[in-house]
Amino acid sequence: MAQIGFIGLGNMGLPMARNLLKAGHDITGFDVVAAAQEAARSDGIAVVAAPTDMLGGVDTVVTMLPAGEHVRSVYLGDEGLLAKAAPGTLFLDCSTIDVATSREVHAEAVDKGHAMIDAPVSGGVAGAEGGTLTFMVGGPKEAFARAKPLLEIMGRNIVHAGGAGNGQAAKICNNMILGISMIAISEAFALGQKLGLDPKVFFDISSAASGSCWAMLNHNPVPGIVETSAANRNYQPGFAAAMMHKDLKLSQAAASHAGAATPLGAEAAALYTLFVNAGNGNLDYSAIIKMIGGSAAN
Amino acid sequence: MAQIGFIGLGNMGLPMARNLLKAGHDITGFDVVAAAQEAARSDGIAVVAAPTDMLGGVDTVVTMLPAGEHVRSVYLGDEGLLAKAAPGTLFLDCSTIDVATSREVHAEAVDKGHAMIDAPVSGGVAGAEGGTLTFMVGGPKEAFARAKPLLEIMGRNIVHAGGAGNGQAAKICNNMILGISMIAISEAFALGQKLGLDPKVFFDISSAASGSCWAMLNHNPVPGIVETSAANRNYQPGFAAAMMHKDLKLSQAAASHAGAATPLGAEAAALYTLFVNAGNGNLDYSAIIKMIGGSAAN
Amino acid sequence: MAQIGFIGLGNMGLPMARNLLKAGHDITGFDVVAAAQEAARSDGIAVVAAPTDMLGGVDTVVTMLPAGEHVRSVYLGDEGLLAKAAPGTLFLDCSTIDVATSREVHAEAVDKGHAMIDAPVSGGVAGAEGGTLTFMVGGPKEAFARAKPLLEIMGRNIVHAGGAGNGQAAKICNNMILGISMIAISEAFALGQKLGLDPKVFFDISSAASGSCWAMLNHNPVPGIVETSAANRNYQPGFAAAMMHKDLKLSQAAASHAGAATPLGAEAAALYTLFVNAGNGNLDYSAIIKMIGGSAAN
Amino acid sequence: MAQIGFIGLGNMGLPMARNLLKAGHDITGFDVVAAAQEAARSDGIAVVAAPTDMLGGVDTVVTMLPAGEHVRSVYLGDEGLLAKAAPGTLFLDCSTIDVATSREVHAEAVDKGHAMIDAPVSGGVAGAEGGTLTFMVGGPKEAFARAKPLLEIMGRNIVHAGGAGNGQAAKICNNMILGISMIAISEAFALGQKLGLDPKVFFDISSAASGSCWAMLNHNPVPGIVETSAANRNYQPGFAAAMMHKDLKLSQAAASHAGAATPLGAEAAALYTLFVNAGNGNLDYSAIIKMIGGSAAN
Repeated sequence: MAQIGFIGLGNMGLPMARNLLKAGHDITGFDVVAAAQEAARSDGIAVVAAPTDMLGGVDTVVTMLPAGEHVRSVYLGDEGLLAKAAPGTLFLDCSTIDVATSREVHAEAVDKGHAMIDAPVSGGVAGAEGGTLTFMVGGPKEAFARAKPLLEIMGRNIVHAGGAGNGQAAKICNNMILGISMIAISEAFALGQKLGLDPKVFFDISSAASGSCWAMLNHNPVPGIVETSAANRNYQPGFAAAMMHKDLKLSQAAASHAGAATPLGAEAAALYTLFVNAGNGNLDYSAIIKMIGGSAAN
Repeated sequence: MAQIGFIGLGNMGLPMARNLLKAGHDITGFDVVAAAQEAARSDGIAVVAAPTDMLGGVDTVVTMLPAGEHVRSVYLGDEGLLAKAAPGTLFLDCSTIDVATSREVHAEAVDKGHAMIDAPVSGGVAGAEGGTLTFMVGGPKEAFARAKPLLEIMGRNIVHAGGAGNGQAAKICNNMILGISMIAISEAFALGQKLGLDPKVFFDISSAASGSCWAMLNHNPVPGIVETSAANRNYQPGFAAAMMHKDLKLSQAAASHAGAATPLGAEAAALYTLFVNAGNGNLDYSAIIKMIGGSAAN
Repeated sequence: MAQIGFIGLGNMGLPMARNLLKAGHDITGFDVVAAAQEAARSDGIAVVAAPTDMLGGVDTVVTMLPAGEHVRSVYLGDEGLLAKAAPGTLFLDCSTIDVATSREVHAEAVDKGHAMIDAPVSGGVAGAEGGTLTFMVGGPKEAFARAKPLLEIMGRNIVHAGGAGNGQAAKICNNMILGISMIAISEAFALGQKLGLDPKVFFDISSAASGSCWAMLNHNPVPGIVETSAANRNYQPGFAAAMMHKDLKLSQAAASHAGAATPLGAEAAALYTLFVNAGNGNLDYSAIIKMIGGSAAN
Repeated sequence: MAQIGFIGLGNMGLPMARNLLKAGHDITGFDVVAAAQEAARSDGIAVVAAPTDMLGGVDTVVTMLPAGEHVRSVYLGDEGLLAKAAPGTLFLDCSTIDVATSREVHAEAVDKGHAMIDAPVSGGVAGAEGGTLTFMVGGPKEAFARAKPLLEIMGRNIVHAGGAGNGQAAKICNNMILGISMIAISEAFALGQKLGLDPKVFFDISSAASGSCWAMLNHNPVPGIVETSAANRNYQPGFAAAMMHKDLKLSQAAASHAGAATPLGAEAAALYTLFVNAGNGNLDYSAIIKMIGGSAAN
């Protein structure tokens, strides 16, 4: 079994690490938060005082960090993971970060003789706990092949999206469509109701017609339409609006960097900013229908 | 068999009327365009000089007109169809028009003792010719029941969306989602390509993930992805951008009238206005990816 | 002195009528609201039971109505003002309505041998009371010349914008810029504050630089910057958000009708819809900074 | 006189450096482009092979670089200007870059004992040549006081906007308003024309009304309205669309970083991306009216 280091043991990272443990791997972990360290220890994860302390005893490192700045800080520089690790170490960065940073870190990894993939996830805490995450992976074939068995423990749907950074690219392009779709559906159902169109009737029509989309079928924002929707649980996430907002901001950063025109993506990001700034970040992303329809709590 | 009057024998109306003829109904027709009159006559349709001239010999009238102003002009007023027809005539308005006008005409029909449905269509010329149109229907149950056999000759998917005007409402709410989706997909695929993400790879990922939608699966705007897409035929419609634009404008008129907030619908309408004003109205609505991606012919 | 009929004696119309009275004209009035009728009578205005009742004794009629539908209802049809008035009557429609309806009514007026101008106003209740309104006028030169003396009693700035409907066109094109500007300024000041830029310092810089605009100088949405701003009076109007919203919706209706692309105008209209639907219609239009900046009361 | 180093001798930097020369200062320069080095030498500027080579002989360094990455590269790191310069050196970064990078470099400068201001410019090449630039300055009072005499040689309007990075903040907040305004004006004039409103008449009305703004008065996008507008010179810049686009992208990056909602700023950035991607980056930013109005050359 692999000796795995796991950096970032929060509400996503810890369940992911546990699944690796259950599969028989040894995990050495690091997190800045004391409560996370405690929870990890009680799970049987050896916790070190600094990220690079784990490097002697592991051949694989998984990172699950909030943003590009944290990934840079942990990976780069003379005291970073890439400089200190034995050549040939496999790095799996499962964070969702900006494409540019991901590619910068990949390049440094290659330069230092390591193998690396970017493998941002979808599926939320439930997916992390159930080992059913989707991984969209970027990086060389060889690194992908080495990492695949570990990804298959933590997830159910593993796709290789191309070279370095393509995991991040695939995730934020997909999630840009998702964020736009959720707002589009909210607008359509709210407009329909104002026109006297019963939402259940409209759902029956549109879900079988050209407006149909995954968000409408799985995360319908109107209560009483799709049983498993957060709309039926007071919009408890699910997929928090703050997380959707983060992904939309990453898509816009990528578009700006790459010179791509994304007028609807930009508008969706701005609308989620309004929604989150009004205090709704912890509600499910489908709760944005309350802002669109005119009955947001905040 | 019914004696049916058919007003509006253009590229949608004439194939629809032909299907009714083939089913054994007698059709009396009217159109302002000489070429349409000719084509109708050669199909065995008796053509009259004015819409109301047909009323003596029919118990059902189908209208297929471009906009609310034409529907008002033909139905309303002392010389209009509703004033002149024998009480109890069944009217099927299959035009796609603004909800407010549709409801105004419905009210007049009821006042004059007639039965009426609004039944705008989807499926384009191909659907009209093949008798496979989708009808989203608004109006009283009794009118719907009377009309249904005729709709089933001209179409394959008949849904009753509620009361007067709900057919128009369902269609433009659905099509607002479709227009937004097509632009969202265009943005995502164009952004993905600029980030080095192969479109086929991205399609394989996103079509099975949370960004998946009918437009991506059926009308993919990138050549070489979905075989039947207009993208593989130089963007020959399909569903013309000018028609998508018309529907988006109707959705915004409805939103304004009803006091509904539709920020993405408004933006989608503006983007299609830019696209159509640049001369691209006759291309398939998926050709908007050329404007988004930076290579519009016009 | 002219014998003037005045239809619409609300919070704008009544002060306007009073100014005409003060200048020595006889006013016969009509309003649907009893309280308005009462207030008018106590001002010395003879109030009639129906709009057309005034026609025998007047050679000029001023209308101040909320929307196109009211203007159509009062002016058109066999029982309307245009049909019943003696040929050569002068009509001043000071309502702010959609351009299409205005032009339709103008055409009917010409057809019936009357003189007509559209003369929507700016300046609010304060301008109506003080006789300092701005009138943007559309219609033939002769009608403008006949109307000018009356406009000069009620207003201070009278501009002839061209033919029939050009008054409406000028007003809503100008007000579309205003609505967009107010949101732009709100975004910039809110962003500046989040970046540590003092709003007074930013005002001193931008008001003298290329971002400077009338709204920034006269209706600054940040408290403590421009003394007379509504921001310093808890955003009490001024110019109500509901009125700005109405004008933005008219601009978008005009754009749709004319096939014009207005992506920012459409977005501004949607943002004011969100703001008004959240219950803020009675606040000054500059209060939208609270929604943009993340501290809207509703 | 000061011994000044000048890094970045392109079409803005070289004229700025020349003005310092004319005022009697000695300039040592650096640029990566051979043609710029040549032009500088022929102006009497001593040109060095690497930026840090100038440090021995100067007490002040001015930088005029395209983006944050260039500023980071030149200032930071063990071989960068801040590490190599004698403590107490004064740095004037006149580049227009993202606020976050500017603040990071400022912090490093303070840490190394230097004085620094960010002082991005407005006024274009004409302003650089004529010594009439506007500088919006961020940084400590003492650094501002030391730099002011030099800024007053190169510019006419010097404003201290606050602490580190506030120059960048003020500039991009102001320019975000400008970019939005130019599109708003383009939409309004184009809509007005489609409604039959003569642009000269509309200009006379709106420039004296609530829609008035600096861009309308100084850079009117319609030919024949404001004599000095680029519109009268085939949209030759002026202020290139590519530069406006750069500033709008910086405003959106700042908004994303600071968690500010900028729905119109985001849309303006996307519209300029469409315009520039269609090949129009070298036209004046007012040429966007051609895209809005439906007659863009590309």
